[in-house]
Amino acid sequence: MVTTWPKNFPGLGTGAEFLAEQINVMSGGRIHVEVYGAGELVPAFEIFDAVAGGSAQMGHGSAYYWKGKYPALQFFSTTPFGMTAMEMNSWLYHGGGMQLWQKAYEQFGLVPAASGNTGVQMAGWFNKEVNSLEDLKGLKMRIPGLAGEVLKRAGGTPVNLPGGELFTSLQSGTIDATEWVGPYNDLAFGFHKIARYYYYPGWHEPGTTLECFINKAAFEELPEDLQSIVLNACRVANQDMLAEYIARNNDALETLVNEHNVKLRELPAEVIDTLGKLSEEVTVELASVDALAREIFDSYSNFFKKSRAWLNISERAYLNLRAG
Amino acid sequence: MVTTWPKNFPGLGTGAEFLAEQINVMSGGRIHVEVYGAGELVPAFEIFDAVAGGSAQMGHGSAYYWKGKYPALQFFSTTPFGMTAMEMNSWLYHGGGMQLWQKAYEQFGLVPAASGNTGVQMAGWFNKEVNSLEDLKGLKMRIPGLAGEVLKRAGGTPVNLPGGELFTSLQSGTIDATEWVGPYNDLAFGFHKIARYYYYPGWHEPGTTLECFINKAAFEELPEDLQSIVLNACRVANQDMLAEYIARNNDALETLVNEHNVKLRELPAEVIDTLGKLSEEVTVELASVDALAREIFDSYSNFFKKSRAWLNISERAYLNLRAG
Repeated sequence: MVTTWPKNFPGLGTGAEFLAEQINVMSGGRIHVEVYGAGELVPAFEIFDAVAGGSAQMGHGSAYYWKGKYPALQFFSTTPFGMTAMEMNSWLYHGGGMQLWQKAYEQFGLVPAASGNTGVQMAGWFNKEVNSLEDLKGLKMRIPGLAGEVLKRAGGTPVNLPGGELFTSLQSGTIDATEWVGPYNDLAFGFHKIARYYYYPGWHEPGTTLECFINKAAFEELPEDLQSIVLNACRVANQDMLAEYIARNNDALETLVNEHNVKLRELPAEVIDTLGKLSEEVTVELASVDALAREIFDSYSNFFKKSRAWLNISERAYLNLRAG
Repeated sequence: MVTTWPKNFPGLGTGAEFLAEQINVMSGGRIHVEVYGAGELVPAFEIFDAVAGGSAQMGHGSAYYWKGKYPALQFFSTTPFGMTAMEMNSWLYHGGGMQLWQKAYEQFGLVPAASGNTGVQMAGWFNKEVNSLEDLKGLKMRIPGLAGEVLKRAGGTPVNLPGGELFTSLQSGTIDATEWVGPYNDLAFGFHKIARYYYYPGWHEPGTTLECFINKAAFEELPEDLQSIVLNACRVANQDMLAEYIARNNDALETLVNEHNVKLRELPAEVIDTLGKLSEEVTVELASVDALAREIFDSYSNFFKKSRAWLNISERAYLNLRAG
């Protein structure tokens, strides 16, 4: 298994190791998965081609990294102002999303599976305070996927870089700002040593799905029980990663704020409003690529309309109630 | 596997079937799980003893049904004003909760596993509108677990009944109100034919964990790969049920409101405030039973304090942001 993460990077890299371990144990050793960090066998952003080409059997990343291959793949990671982790899982497993993801990856000879989720991410680290839309103009920020396009339309310069290159890029001034994941991961990378302002809520990645993809020919050689073990191990890993982030983020945030004097800030309403409008614009445009992209967009949008209505009187109403 | 649900009841009964199917397929037929509905082998509320005694190998229910055996078991289902589904999974898998659940069930010769979650439940069905605390006085309501004790202290009469008996109890006037799960399940039981008012948010069960428990001696006879298959199948089923509820609830709610003319209502602030205070009271009292109960309470409370703080700037902030 080749991955886009530094070997054993908290949450993401360890999530890939956890997945491998479940497959190894459940298969009683009939499958042995070995995990390679970014750059060990192939660079982070070449794992998709490596697995499609058969030089590795499995990959671990996130679908928006491959938007250059096919833009609509971004729906299988996250969309700005889109679905949360709970909704993504619901769409994938009970709303037809998984079948569409399979269809989209079949073109590349790959079988996809959701195998992790970060939950709502933080809006990111900034050298300077963001007080108005003006502060986004000319901003060089690492922000992948659709959200990068949103930043561009708001006047900024989005950059896509693998995690392992973010600290030095921020340090050297190649970028002025970066989002990554959330407190647990961000503390590990040490962004607070350079950028002082840490923003929420994460409008741009409200529930990012991580993926495992498998070389289709290799997958089809497996008997039914091992296929089921591999796909179910991905589901376990999917749930486990989200559980880990929820468990670790608050302690890490307290360390950042109390020990490292990071300034925790909420994005201004004006900025949120504009980013929201631009997000809808770029998401809708994705549908126009071809018939499959339209099908993915329609499925995502129709599901989201319903899940949002339900969460408004369940999850959201309850979280507001208990906050008093 | 004996269950507390009617055979193939949507979400809960089908969730037990889904779990059995994953075990059967992943084990390549080395394990064959057969699911029995409530009353088929033993009545709903006798499954705990049946599996502890070895007359069945697995059970599927929820831990608060066994509060008569040991009150602190309720923490492994849900607590009023407590953790959501996401937080329960996080506490269980990454916060020490699972180890405590194992310790608590070991006394009965059982191995527990989380194997489903309903998400935030609806506050329930009422014959009459709830406009003030006065309307809870003398109210006979089916409401299990700690929330039942809360209702009692608010002047009502809580009743614990298995799902299959709720419709006739409501019809005959044995109860004036009932909570069950949410629109998808409640529509299936037809409560709207009798009670007209449907309330949210579900203060009393914010993320109810369903369980699978296994006879410990039977579990220990399994080799490591099959033990891992059984426990991981429970984790897959845990995630899958929540995904299904999120996918189905909104359509069912629209049917209830638009086709059956059900009145959807929000509980008044005065009622919520009082129920909140009473909920804290009854939850704290559970800790005083013995040292293990104290340990469970402390673990749950300490974890919850942190997860709540984190969700306030992630999940909650985002859900409010996107609602505009």
